[in-house]
Amino acid sequence: MTIPKQVFVREVGPREGLQTSSKVVATEDKLKLIDFLSHSGVKEIEITSMVRPDRVPQMADSDELIARFRPAPGVRYTALYLNRKGFARAEASGRLMNEGWIYSATSDTFLSKNANTSHRDIVTSLSEWLSDFRAAGKAQHGVMISTAFGCAYEGSAVRDRLLPVAQELVDALSQQGSRPKELSLADTVGHGTPELVRKAVGDLKARFPDIRISLHLHDTRGTGIANAYAGLLEGADCFDASVGGAGGCPFTPGAAGNIATEDLAYMCEELGASTGISLDSYVQGAKFLEQVLGTRLPGKYYRTARSRA
Amino acid sequence: MTIPKQVFVREVGPREGLQTSSKVVATEDKLKLIDFLSHSGVKEIEITSMVRPDRVPQMADSDELIARFRPAPGVRYTALYLNRKGFARAEASGRLMNEGWIYSATSDTFLSKNANTSHRDIVTSLSEWLSDFRAAGKAQHGVMISTAFGCAYEGSAVRDRLLPVAQELVDALSQQGSRPKELSLADTVGHGTPELVRKAVGDLKARFPDIRISLHLHDTRGTGIANAYAGLLEGADCFDASVGGAGGCPFTPGAAGNIATEDLAYMCEELGASTGISLDSYVQGAKFLEQVLGTRLPGKYYRTARSRA
Repeated sequence: MTIPKQVFVREVGPREGLQTSSKVVATEDKLKLIDFLSHSGVKEIEITSMVRPDRVPQMADSDELIARFRPAPGVRYTALYLNRKGFARAEASGRLMNEGWIYSATSDTFLSKNANTSHRDIVTSLSEWLSDFRAAGKAQHGVMISTAFGCAYEGSAVRDRLLPVAQELVDALSQQGSRPKELSLADTVGHGTPELVRKAVGDLKARFPDIRISLHLHDTRGTGIANAYAGLLEGADCFDASVGGAGGCPFTPGAAGNIATEDLAYMCEELGASTGISLDSYVQGAKFLEQVLGTRLPGKYYRTARSRA
Repeated sequence: MTIPKQVFVREVGPREGLQTSSKVVATEDKLKLIDFLSHSGVKEIEITSMVRPDRVPQMADSDELIARFRPAPGVRYTALYLNRKGFARAEASGRLMNEGWIYSATSDTFLSKNANTSHRDIVTSLSEWLSDFRAAGKAQHGVMISTAFGCAYEGSAVRDRLLPVAQELVDALSQQGSRPKELSLADTVGHGTPELVRKAVGDLKARFPDIRISLHLHDTRGTGIANAYAGLLEGADCFDASVGGAGGCPFTPGAAGNIATEDLAYMCEELGASTGISLDSYVQGAKFLEQVLGTRLPGKYYRTARSRA
């Protein structure tokens, strides 16, 4: 149980933090938010989602946003895609640096509602995904497994599927010469607990010592940061998080936002795990987002931080 | 690192959760809140504070509240006291079940502002406290050390004082034939981190294997529940918490409320540590308090919980 010395943080706020907001944020404000994050030291930012503009009004400006954001050196900018069409649209922009990700879940009900697919369909379509990635000059990089610790529709029974689903995807990709470098466990509805996270991370690291295990945590029942700490204790060194803890999931009723990036980064730094993130920049970004959304965000650190210069 | 099978929770919401609220809550509403908590399975409730009514308007009705609350069987009702006069006033009510507590801190600046005293004065006055307790027919029960992990005024330097202050109080009380049964570490400003909590709980349990180590945690920087988990990992089995996570500290600028009782209880139950608390009762209590205060509370569980019957 040694906490990693370095932690990689993926900022998903501009996409996941905003996607459930009933207030559609102006493109200019999204660009300003991305600017705050771009100069914070965070190394990857998911700026939008490749969904149908008529389905998610908040994402209706995604093409404009992708065309206009001001990239900072050393930062990877990506957009979430849930199907091959979305991946193609992101690639066509020529401005994103998406890696090749496969998205599945332990819950087929979730997959059906979220992306109109199933785990079986995803496994069957792996070769098509890989050929898309190759055509775009990308290696297959990672696998994300959603509803890893519970599902709003199927409950906690899906937890038993985590290891088999992970094993099947890793095996299938390995057989096709494309073993994933990263396996991300998404606690989509925030029903994970520290002990579940510890066990899952520990089990997966033991099975796949060559694959990075990362965590995408939601704070629905208040255990989000405790779950992150539990992951750190087992050596997880890569986390998704959202500025100010903004967000939720449109397809999972009751889910709260991701853990707040600045709360996570504060804890990591205090535990000796460097993130490269400037907390002051994040406090500014979270305060700006709070102003734009006109509502207090769930994050704690940004609300009480005084300058730590 | 074995998580305790049973955890004792002290509800401090009616006192600490309300004391910083700018809205003075009607006595009737306080009584209703106490009723929700009384029937939740929680075994101790701090219902008010023995401060000067003209100093803390929220506590101006404390004598009336103490006279009128409806005790449930098996529940201990207490009021916080910071000086001997307060203890005497609580005793005089004849309706409270306070135990004998000594309150000190690692920070003299905090003690000066919070209770107009110092650690030295507290050590000097121990015999007077003990004689007050004896006169009231009470044993000396516990010691609380505030600002255990940091202080708004003196910063993190006070952390080094935690073990010496604890040792001095335990030694002094033991020499007077009144060794404490419990040592409570209060993270008054919420600057604790999981590793600090683990180390402190581990160190104190090693020094004082016969004394229960308990935690009073604030969630100022988002690590409150992670700190509780860290404490559980080291065997801490007693926590203060506040319904809905309501509260703050009037003498510590920027401090957020205690960890939310229902978030803590949810995590404990999921980790196999029984609290005896009905989450449904707490969800009702938190929703009631939210309505009374007219503001969203920091707790997470109560906002998204569906019935778990």
